[in-house]
Amino acid sequence: MMTTPGYDYDDPSLRPSPVTLDDLEKLKATVLFSSADEAALKTAGDVLAPQIDQILDVWYGFVGANPHLVAYFSTPSGTPLPDYLARVRARFAHWILDTCNRPYDEQWLAYHQEIAIRHTAEKKNETDHVDSVPYIPLRYMIGFIYPITATIRPFLTAAGHREEEVEAMFNAWFKSVTMQVTLWSYPYAKSVW
Amino acid sequence: MMTTPGYDYDDPSLRPSPVTLDDLEKLKATVLFSSADEAALKTAGDVLAPQIDQILDVWYGFVGANPHLVAYFSTPSGTPLPDYLARVRARFAHWILDTCNRPYDEQWLAYHQEIAIRHTAEKKNETDHVDSVPYIPLRYMIGFIYPITATIRPFLTAAGHREEEVEAMFNAWFKSVTMQVTLWSYPYAKSVW
Ligand code: HEM
Ligand code: HEM
Repeated sequence: MMTTPGYDYDDPSLRPSPVTLDDLEKLKATVLFSSADEAALKTAGDVLAPQIDQILDVWYGFVGANPHLVAYFSTPSGTPLPDYLARVRARFAHWILDTCNRPYDEQWLAYHQEIAIRHTAEKKNETDHVDSVPYIPLRYMIGFIYPITATIRPFLTAAGHREEEVEAMFNAWFKSVTMQVTLWSYPYAKSVW
Repeated sequence: MMTTPGYDYDDPSLRPSPVTLDDLEKLKATVLFSSADEAALKTAGDVLAPQIDQILDVWYGFVGANPHLVAYFSTPSGTPLPDYLARVRARFAHWILDTCNRPYDEQWLAYHQEIAIRHTAEKKNETDHVDSVPYIPLRYMIGFIYPITATIRPFLTAAGHREEEVEAMFNAWFKSVTMQVTLWSYPYAKSVW
């Protein structure tokens, strides 16, 4: 399987997350995430797998159309970096299927801590060896919960599931995206997380 | 009109928000919030107004059923404070209609900065003169985006609107809740907000 540059999900040397499994259980309860959602996400993974590029086209189109967002894929003076966009896009493709198919265990938490710091000054730009702006502000991390959730809905209808099944997949996706952005907010808040 | 203790939305002495109208425009673009959403929220306000208590029963039932959440309405040793819950509930009722009906202007931003600090150690417990835990962790502020958004949907169907109208009201609500939690995350992140 062609390896994706910088995609380190299964890297055994990942540092463990500061977030414990008990923290995760409470976070799951807060977003009402249950085993039914795990099942709905598995179905969603099958539905979304053949549509990854179309989904990423929507998200990257959205970022590209907003100067205040594409700035984070650009040099400090504002020139977009095409290979940075391309390399992150390839990891973003994995993320869609990982959201649906990976067990939410300590390895999942460890990689989310890695993704968290890759959005902040602690590690942004290192993975892709680029000269870009130092961090992504928390306001846009939380703000993205809406577009990353809402734009997935039409793709969930592509395999002809009944409305309640689409609604179940959509809610499971919404819960998971909310949990993941919550995990990625850790480095921004630390002691008050 | 009976005044609600601690509800200071129209208080002229509110300090201005550190968030500018330009910041707000970019945040609106990030969640795709447009004038169509403002119209949908006005309709939602009419639909939700007769159901405020039922909505608050759902949310307060959810908090009450989760020890790790009711803790924030309790003494440091874990005893829930009924009058704290009641006073905040009354302000929460205003919040539902404010979300739908208030212009999102500098006064709106100012009161959201006030609501933000009331969730943090800077001002929690002062408004209601209670001895409770010092702050609410950021993880639950972001986590609540799911329950506060998802549980509103059935209430939006109560006035018999067509499915697309309910969908428009739901998305406008989802965008607004995401923006408001983003504004309330300011004191947790400050320089990296
Ligand atoms: C719901 C919110 C978001 C999701 C789900 C998301 C998803 C991802 C994923 C999966 C990666 C690659 C992780 C890896 O290295 O394996 C990534 C990295 C990145 N994202 Fe996000 N992201 C979000 C918010 C944002 C925002 C608001 C921006 C700002 C435009 C942004 C810009 C970037 C950049 C520049 C990178 C590369 C970071 C680096 O240098 O390593 N992301 N994101
Ligand atoms: C989407 C997320 C949330 C929304 C929309 C929300 C809404 C509100 C509103 C409208 C108020 C009253 C504001 C005012 O004083 O006028 C408030 C205060 C409060 N909320 Fe939240 N809240 C959220 C998250 C949370 C969470 C996660 C908790 C934890 C259980 C919580 C616990 C409280 C408490 C204890 C107060 C009183 C704070 C004080 O001492 O002044 N809230 N909230």
